Amino acid sequence: MVITNAYIIKKSPELRCKAEAAGLHSLIDFDGPIMTDSGTFQMHVYGKVDTTSEEIVAFQKSIGSDICTILDIFSETEDTREQAEAGMVETLQRASAASGLAEMELALPIQGGLYLDLRERCARELSRLEAAVYPIGGVVPLMESYRYGELVEVILHSKKGLRHDRPVHLFGCGHPMLFPLAVFLGCDLFDSASYIKYARDGRMLFSWGTRHISSMEELPCDCLVCRDNTVEDVLSMEDGERTRVLALHNLSVSFGELKRVKQALREGRLWEMVCHRARVHPSLLEAMASVKKHAPWIERYTPSTRPKGMLYTGLETLWRPEVYHVLDRLFSTELFPRDSYVLVPFMGGKSMDWSREHIDDLLRVWADRGVLVDSIFGPVPLELSEAYPFGGMILPSFPREWEASFYPTVGERRKKLVSRMEEWGKDVDELDIEGMGEAEDVSDEELRASFNAARMHCLCSYQFFPGAGDILLDGPMSLVVSKNTGKIRNVISGGEHILSLRAEDGMFSLKVPGARRLCQCEKGAKVVVDKDTGAFNREGKNVMARFVLSVTEEINPGDEVYVVDEDNALLAVGRALLNAQEMKDFTRGVAVKVREGVVSVCSEEEE
Amino acid sequence: MVITNAYIIKKSPELRCKAEAAGLHSLIDFDGPIMTDSGTFQMHVYGKVDTTSEEIVAFQKSIGSDICTILDIFSETEDTREQAEAGMVETLQRASAASGLAEMELALPIQGGLYLDLRERCARELSRLEAAVYPIGGVVPLMESYRYGELVEVILHSKKGLRHDRPVHLFGCGHPMLFPLAVFLGCDLFDSASYIKYARDGRMLFSWGTRHISSMEELPCDCLVCRDNTVEDVLSMEDGERTRVLALHNLSVSFGELKRVKQALREGRLWEMVCHRARVHPSLLEAMASVKKHAPWIERYTPSTRPKGMLYTGLETLWRPEVYHVLDRLFSTELFPRDSYVLVPFMGGKSMDWSREHIDDLLRVWADRGVLVDSIFGPVPLELSEAYPFGGMILPSFPREWEASFYPTVGERRKKLVSRMEEWGKDVDELDIEGMGEAEDVSDEELRASFNAARMHCLCSYQFFPGAGDILLDGPMSLVVSKNTGKIRNVISGGEHILSLRAEDGMFSLKVPGARRLCQCEKGAKVVVDKDTGAFNREGKNVMARFVLSVTEEINPGDEVYVVDEDNALLAVGRALLNAQEMKDFTRGVAVKVREGVVSVCSEEEE
Repeated sequence: MVITNAYIIKKSPELRCKAEAAGLHSLIDFDGPIMTDSGTFQMHVYGKVDTTSEEIVAFQKSIGSDICTILDIFSETEDTREQAEAGMVETLQRASAASGLAEMELALPIQGGLYLDLRERCARELSRLEAAVYPIGGVVPLMESYRYGELVEVILHSKKGLRHDRPVHLFGCGHPMLFPLAVFLGCDLFDSASYIKYARDGRMLFSWGTRHISSMEELPCDCLVCRDNTVEDVLSMEDGERTRVLALHNLSVSFGELKRVKQALREGRLWEMVCHRARVHPSLLEAMASVKKHAPWIERYTPSTRPKGMLYTGLETLWRPEVYHVLDRLFSTELFPRDSYVLVPFMGGKSMDWSREHIDDLLRVWADRGVLVDSIFGPVPLELSEAYPFGGMILPSFPREWEASFYPTVGERRKKLVSRMEEWGKDVDELDIEGMGEAEDVSDEELRASFNAARMHCLCSYQFFPGAGDILLDGPMSLVVSKNTGKIRNVISGGEHILSLRAEDGMFSLKVPGARRLCQCEKGAKVVVDKDTGAFNREGKNVMARFVLSVTEEINPGDEVYVVDEDNALLAVGRALLNAQEMKDFTRGVAVKVREGVVSVCSEEEE
Repeated sequence: MVITNAYIIKKSPELRCKAEAAGLHSLIDFDGPIMTDSGTFQMHVYGKVDTTSEEIVAFQKSIGSDICTILDIFSETEDTREQAEAGMVETLQRASAASGLAEMELALPIQGGLYLDLRERCARELSRLEAAVYPIGGVVPLMESYRYGELVEVILHSKKGLRHDRPVHLFGCGHPMLFPLAVFLGCDLFDSASYIKYARDGRMLFSWGTRHISSMEELPCDCLVCRDNTVEDVLSMEDGERTRVLALHNLSVSFGELKRVKQALREGRLWEMVCHRARVHPSLLEAMASVKKHAPWIERYTPSTRPKGMLYTGLETLWRPEVYHVLDRLFSTELFPRDSYVLVPFMGGKSMDWSREHIDDLLRVWADRGVLVDSIFGPVPLELSEAYPFGGMILPSFPREWEASFYPTVGERRKKLVSRMEEWGKDVDELDIEGMGEAEDVSDEELRASFNAARMHCLCSYQFFPGAGDILLDGPMSLVVSKNTGKIRNVISGGEHILSLRAEDGMFSLKVPGARRLCQCEKGAKVVVDKDTGAFNREGKNVMARFVLSVTEEINPGDEVYVVDEDNALLAVGRALLNAQEMKDFTRGVAVKVREGVVSVCSEEEE
């Protein structure tokens, strides 16, 4: 998609004439979608423009722009609250006026300066109007002066007010250094002339910063320009040619970084990428403190599991959004059915690995008392040591002096959960590692079987809801074990295949008979669709967001859900791709990736 | 340079025949330098090889290898101390035998397994023999299993034993993820077949990790392969073609990373790059804890200043090698000539910025009492607030909970220096920011002039040695100020231009008259050369390391030094490019970049 500036076209007699005669697409020789900006940024730079919002919107429409932007009021970072509010109100009025016009796709920018409640209010009001895109405006001064902490606040407060079903555009964001963070915060579109402006100044963009060509001794990148030229080559070029090749480099790096962001997003590793990039400049690291403040809100949009474990990147790992999800779920008495527990002490992040390695010894302890493993989340039941995120997390082992604050935080989490457990009447002592594995009068097989049963119950409570095991696993249980790996694959209860245990994250997939048990008790994460389209879901087709009538609150993307019609007749089981709010708001796209419809279930085969 | 394996050539009748007939260069069609390996790695993989060191070295020589490697004993990571020591002793004997042979450039690998004293001893013994390259061997198992902390120890202990004047090769290091760290630790050469081995398995190397092509949805890189192909394109290729393009990608990424390392090295930003990359995998972060242990040793090889400030990347910044340099120099009573001090409190890393912004107010405080500014180095005299590293450092401002351990460390440094100052009989109180800037009976001009005089003295003590100002600035002082920037440029004492103040790092360049004063007192960093070559230095030519007779201890690269002949006659002033030990050991290259020879000094012109 291309963005260009309608105000500049309108001001130039030549461009205007061509645009009016042959249309915008012909003017710039591009037949894909074109968005036009309105002159707002020129108002910011020059203090005023000689057009009105009506006029410039009408002009955009007349030249055939695909997405027209109103002339919003650029809120300056030094605006007083009164100024910012007045500007925002004016922006809202202009948005409202433009949205009355028919047959036009609009971009309605969110303003409000550094007043976060104004940003949220502006976003909320604009969400009531129809727009193709909601840009976040007035942020270039923040980006120019590395005020990334404030940028995070502005973006997140805008997002909090915004409807979920439209793309968000971050106006003027053109430095690849910012792309991972901006995408992480929920921005979908970027535009900037930086690639060419920087090129004219001889400056090269990199995902790790900006460098002037004259300060380089190497061209440290894999793009065509850097591969085929030396620094001397570029310096000796004519101005125009130098600008051209540097602009190509800048574009190549920008698109490369967007591809890396997309790949990270698909791998579920965008958080890690953002944390990695945060070390590129202290201001980006500072921005992570703002991200931390909003982590519980971000958590609602964060997949509840992923195929690969979390990687520790620094202290911010302790406060990543997923951690709040896990902490929430750990505070549940159903995860701790025993009266007395011993705790495997915190070993600089390696206690979980240690416990898996010593599982046989620990099981002999477990015969007597429950076993907890200390972790960065606080003490975790041994039963969960293979589930996400406890199973796959990779933590370094540091000397204490290195990350002294790591320990107090972990210590507080331990204290909090242990004292809750004590309120529940449990004993918790530290494990005596030396005295571990004393003989018990029970065979290895019996012990393993009874641990596995406890594990299935514990995991049900952790993954679905406290006590879910009582419903899902009501009846004689048997476990199907993989012949290759020796790992549990299927959980059978009362002769029905209720759950499968995924190897990739140690979590359950819900099967139709399991969903039926939940559905009968009206428990668990449920998506209601209407009967007409429900017929498709019964046959195993995905649930489209537009057909969702209602959903259980607090569904996260990645959660196991079941699908019913208005009469609570079970249709299918699958995995949520959106959270509950998004399922309600979205009018396009898949809400639930259906794994089994009740009709297709008979033909299913498992190992 | 190319590396290939002489053992494999020797074992293949066809290759051997060609190599013996036409020579190695013709065999692989490469006329640049070729190094050959000996079969040691095959011994590690297959348990044994059927050749001897004498035989394989002779073979390498016979086929025209440019650098021949002895058949060293691969020390396995699970070796007992006895095994590792026996292997090392055998390696030393074979090295000794080979080094007796004439007309051959040798690679003598350092072994000793995980026994660090053995590594150091092996390196020290091998340094007595002549070799073109010193590889560090037996490290592939550490790299394969992400044991980067141990890898750091092995490299650094090898380096500690090694002579300074030969390149160090890290055997089998082929993952770009490791290049910045390995170069930072002093490795100069790398070899690996990983690029092609990984390609055969469908795996792509990146500076941020490894990915299987089938797990990719984007080709997230700017290389030709990733630019011209989609994932589907690559997956649908014939095996051979897929291997070829993935190998090209892997090579492109590897060479790109080496270019980025070189650029970072030249910018003085390699530490920041290493810290940035450390967030790619927790094991790399773990390695930083090993780096920290050796930071005081690494400091000796670290430039004492650089044009741009330090960037905070995380807690490791508190322990970067340069910090030890600074801490050393701060503990000097000459930096604290006043009896009573007030301390600008620590503001999450921003106290130094704050102090520069409030310099006028602070000077009115300074009229009465000395002013200290709290920093991550502990309290720093206000006089140094524009000097490296205090001047250009960029720190984020965090909430306390974010980097809780940041504060205790900074607090300890403060306590340590303040209690030393108290031993020296000084008062130190916290600055009352509210009551700051009370009127003093002194004009702004007088105050500024007397602060500037104190600043020049303080900086002399900090940069050269405690009390250096008494020698350098003995006599009536005047300061030449830049008309453009208002900043001090030249320091004149007794009518002579003694020092220039560099804008880039707020540190002094030494001028010939200044050097003459130091030379007369036999103080300061001095490089002695012989008279014959000294004549060139008098004319402004650089000092070559091979002509250095002796040097003051504790010269760091980047230090201001003066050059004299055996009779202590001053020849030139300039900047050290090597540290003291390197100047003594090196037989090639520039030791001191001369800025002024005593002959050329008359023609000099300054602003």
